[in-house]
Amino acid sequence: MREFILRALKSRTDEKFDLNDLPSAGRMDLVCRCISNAVFISNDLRRDTIIHVVLDGPSDPPKIISFSGAELKGINFDERDIAMHIQEALKKGKNLKLNDSTVVSPGIVVSKKSFEQLVKEKSEAGKGLIYLHDEGESVREFKFDSAKDYVFVFGDFIGMPRKTEGLLDRLGAKRVNIGPKMLFASHCIIVVHNELDFRGI
Amino acid sequence: MREFILRALKSRTDEKFDLNDLPSAGRMDLVCRCISNAVFISNDLRRDTIIHVVLDGPSDPPKIISFSGAELKGINFDERDIAMHIQEALKKGKNLKLNDSTVVSPGIVVSKKSFEQLVKEKSEAGKGLIYLHDEGESVREFKFDSAKDYVFVFGDFIGMPRKTEGLLDRLGAKRVNIGPKMLFASHCIIVVHNELDFRGI
Repeated sequence: MREFILRALKSRTDEKFDLNDLPSAGRMDLVCRCISNAVFISNDLRRDTIIHVVLDGPSDPPKIISFSGAELKGINFDERDIAMHIQEALKKGKNLKLNDSTVVSPGIVVSKKSFEQLVKEKSEAGKGLIYLHDEGESVREFKFDSAKDYVFVFGDFIGMPRKTEGLLDRLGAKRVNIGPKMLFASHCIIVVHNELDFRGI
Repeated sequence: MREFILRALKSRTDEKFDLNDLPSAGRMDLVCRCISNAVFISNDLRRDTIIHVVLDGPSDPPKIISFSGAELKGINFDERDIAMHIQEALKKGKNLKLNDSTVVSPGIVVSKKSFEQLVKEKSEAGKGLIYLHDEGESVREFKFDSAKDYVFVFGDFIGMPRKTEGLLDRLGAKRVNIGPKMLFASHCIIVVHNELDFRGI
């Protein structure tokens, strides 16, 4: 199983955004591209992949929407269609209590949960945390333990708050770099997938 | 200089499409994602990169729109904004004669030219043609000649017509594979960029 966690610090946490102007919804376009790149490939879904997008923007943070490639149905891979599913999830998740979650549609779950809580849970479940970071070890050199499931964690264009980086360090997250150029979060996902594909992990 | 040529067999060649429904315009969303992934990186443009998208759908094929990272201005990297620029280019290119072209805005040129003509010109200019294909040599093994500029050619979800493949073979295009999974055209661009970044080409 491959898991990704994107932290989108400014992306809206209510359904009040315009599908025709995703950048104004705290760069919801970027969030959609990450989801698309994580779970879709040509003529198929990546059935071994889950992406959790942690939305921390107004007006009701935090919200996490999780997309599971194994179960998704009736969703297209363009930004606008994915954004419609996010909107639906945010509507359904409106009255969730902290750390509760609910199924939105096949393969889509919305939770009222913080980024910190999610990574702690992944760590406690024995998963290997990898924090995508400029100054990490090259993904091409990194020794993946084939007995382990990995969770790749990354920030959006704003980056990760220092406090959160401290938590990731305490949880033993390994810093991994995906190449010489600063790429978008959505590009990093493609590079990670491609590396794991090549290695047959 | 890195160049990409996407052939989009069904994508519209007039401006009559709805920015709120790009998939219905012959998968114009896919075209936009390719452009975004080719020329944008985090906080910057890839100034060494040009992407040519060859549109072959209705109602006035062929049309080629070229985006040059070195010159682009005032364009965002979300699908909808890129699609607006495509629409503008198709409007401006309406009355072009065969093989003529015109500048649309900084870094964007529209041409009335076929895919075949474009690849022939690139070949005659001494550029190395690389055809991204399942059955090619792995991009990780491919020996790039550092004295050469390369042009990466790829089809959309429909693939490349057999006749065109014959032309590419005659022009000496090398077939290169970008990984074990069938990826979207837009993903292939990321993988190619990442490989060239790693090699410092």
